[in-house]
Amino acid sequence: MGHGDPSVFPCFRTAPEAVDAVAGALRSWEHNSYSTCVGLEPARRSIAKYLSHNLPYELSPDDVYLTSGCAQAIEIICSVLARPGANILLPRPGYLFYEARAVFNGMEARYYDLLPEKDWEVDIHGVQALADENTVAMVIVYTYEHLAKVAETARKLGIFVITDEVYAHLTFGERKFVPMGVFGEVAPVFTLGSISKRWLVPGWRLGWIVTNDPNGVFQRTKVVDSIKSYLDISSDPPTFVQGAIPNLLENTKEEFFDKTVKILRETSDICWEKLKGISAITCPSKPEGSMFVMVKLDLTCLQDIKDDMDFCCRLAKEELVVLLPGCAVGYKNWLRITFAIDPSSLEDGLDRFKSFCLRHSKPTK
Amino acid sequence: MGHGDPSVFPCFRTAPEAVDAVAGALRSWEHNSYSTCVGLEPARRSIAKYLSHNLPYELSPDDVYLTSGCAQAIEIICSVLARPGANILLPRPGYLFYEARAVFNGMEARYYDLLPEKDWEVDIHGVQALADENTVAMVIVYTYEHLAKVAETARKLGIFVITDEVYAHLTFGERKFVPMGVFGEVAPVFTLGSISKRWLVPGWRLGWIVTNDPNGVFQRTKVVDSIKSYLDISSDPPTFVQGAIPNLLENTKEEFFDKTVKILRETSDICWEKLKGISAITCPSKPEGSMFVMVKLDLTCLQDIKDDMDFCCRLAKEELVVLLPGCAVGYKNWLRITFAIDPSSLEDGLDRFKSFCLRHSKPTK
Ligand SMILES: Cc1ncc(COP(=O)(O)O)c(C=O)c1O
Ligand SMILES: Cc1ncc(COP(=O)(O)O)c(C=O)c1O
Repeated sequence: MGHGDPSVFPCFRTAPEAVDAVAGALRSWEHNSYSTCVGLEPARRSIAKYLSHNLPYELSPDDVYLTSGCAQAIEIICSVLARPGANILLPRPGYLFYEARAVFNGMEARYYDLLPEKDWEVDIHGVQALADENTVAMVIVYTYEHLAKVAETARKLGIFVITDEVYAHLTFGERKFVPMGVFGEVAPVFTLGSISKRWLVPGWRLGWIVTNDPNGVFQRTKVVDSIKSYLDISSDPPTFVQGAIPNLLENTKEEFFDKTVKILRETSDICWEKLKGISAITCPSKPEGSMFVMVKLDLTCLQDIKDDMDFCCRLAKEELVVLLPGCAVGYKNWLRITFAIDPSSLEDGLDRFKSFCLRHSKPTK
Repeated sequence: MGHGDPSVFPCFRTAPEAVDAVAGALRSWEHNSYSTCVGLEPARRSIAKYLSHNLPYELSPDDVYLTSGCAQAIEIICSVLARPGANILLPRPGYLFYEARAVFNGMEARYYDLLPEKDWEVDIHGVQALADENTVAMVIVYTYEHLAKVAETARKLGIFVITDEVYAHLTFGERKFVPMGVFGEVAPVFTLGSISKRWLVPGWRLGWIVTNDPNGVFQRTKVVDSIKSYLDISSDPPTFVQGAIPNLLENTKEEFFDKTVKILRETSDICWEKLKGISAITCPSKPEGSMFVMVKLDLTCLQDIKDDMDFCCRLAKEELVVLLPGCAVGYKNWLRITFAIDPSSLEDGLDRFKSFCLRHSKPTK
């Protein structure tokens, strides 16, 4: 329950159509050669089409660059935007890989808050206070309806937006997924994504960088040239996985996606109900997307637990349940719980989590 | 004839066993998850075994790091060895990707010569003259029997050896392939390799870094830790390709390798015979391995041709034959000819190459 990879559970198996697409490309003998450094054209064309569904304008294949998973997309963007003295605005809680790559490239990572009491919306005032003339971009990991405000803020500050949409479409609440690219005309947006999460195949390593930029700012500022130069000296995703993309995107049945979302809704409900009964934690909002819920530890209720890290180590030892300590996502004394695991293991895990909390609670006077 | 990727020709198709290995791993449902950052253990174990065949000691799986093709292995090694003021010794002619990655990491690339008149042996004296206290390593792209001398030189200079063995086993002359790792006790060796060339699948993107270092120098100098840290923030090769490696290495039939070597012997013979009849070039030695032959342009025999680049551009325009100008491998006014193409296209291409040379020759008085 500490991990973000449900693909080991039979109920989270990828679509057979996706496997067929890759096996077909592999057996076609047509995709054993080197690909071009930006990626095969048919793959880029079908990703452009796939992502254009939710946009007020059409993406072209030239807006799409294929990468080895979203991880390599992050690597490339951080490398391309880095220059001496630059800083980048990252969300907290967030995905620490951004910080690792930003720091590797000599950029300063500055954190803005996502507000738990406001459904994890971006702290817009905080963002404005953090940015200065050396700020190159801000990263949005998860999208909400106030994206327009975020775009407006980016425009005012004159910075790019990097939107990490690996969890796109994995929403199961009232609100639907809105891609940040919708606001590409307000401020230029890099959309990073991959097939890892929606198709439940993080091991296949296919991702993309997409320029959502109807005004051509990235072309004019030569950022696009830098991306191409970086790709020139980088290894590409396997050609046959690229070759499989048109089939995979076009032939995966809606039922597959519906099934995944249905299970996630179920497991997030289980999680929400069970968490309510645990007094040592508070969970500010019911999850409506992705695979995780953040809960706040109330250390004053617990005896002999120092912090989130201590909590997680002892929980693992005493109950064989693994949660991610908040410090690993930049949120001290919180816990991140993955509910994308099979329902019976989840119930069992949450019960053990509860007994652990009870056992370590301070006696109430 | 300018490219290093024969996989588009039916006579250079990969082994069906290799395709089955990858398809099997894909269909097993066991390799859809993230892998570990150094690579799956069974894959590393089987590569260690595969490479140990030709060594006087056994490699352990912990000596093996999986990469996205040999290209990512080069990226990692350059990044790990870079420090302010460092330089790295590269062979000329060579693979320019090394220079691109070295320069990207702020290292100076210094070139030593491979001597055409000595069967492209390393110019050992040149190496000694180039190296100084900031030299971190030297790269050997192609291996000969004087490897012992190379190892001795590296030991004297106190530098590491990086041996690029992507073309390992693709030898068809008298001499057999000798891995540089044989001399790992004399000087510590990084062996870079991949399945790209021997299995004719450059698009599958699976390679490795192997530490050939029975004395544990890489451990003691913490280079191994740096490799692991770099892999921590890099994207891995697809898990199912990793999962296919044990089968691929163990089940590919000898006949497949024999067939490839037989065709390469044939096409290199065709090449050698045809080249003899062209007076504007000299070819110092008959190729005994890899997929290329280097020939020297005699510009004094040719009229209205400025240099190798001019030669290649006009050859492409007039005869639709593409060769690589020597400047692209650091060897001005030479040409690199790929003979790993199907025999009839090769004959046709070489005939056109000959007519071009005849047409542009200076009239003999
Ligand atoms: C927010 C976020 N971005 C990117 C990634 C990496 O995605 P990929 O597996 O496609 O490299 C992850 C993986 O967990 C993630 O949580
Ligand atoms: C000498 C050399 N090293 C490395 C590579 C790259 O190998 P890979 O395709 O495994 O990344 C090549 C490709 O042509 C090469 O010629």
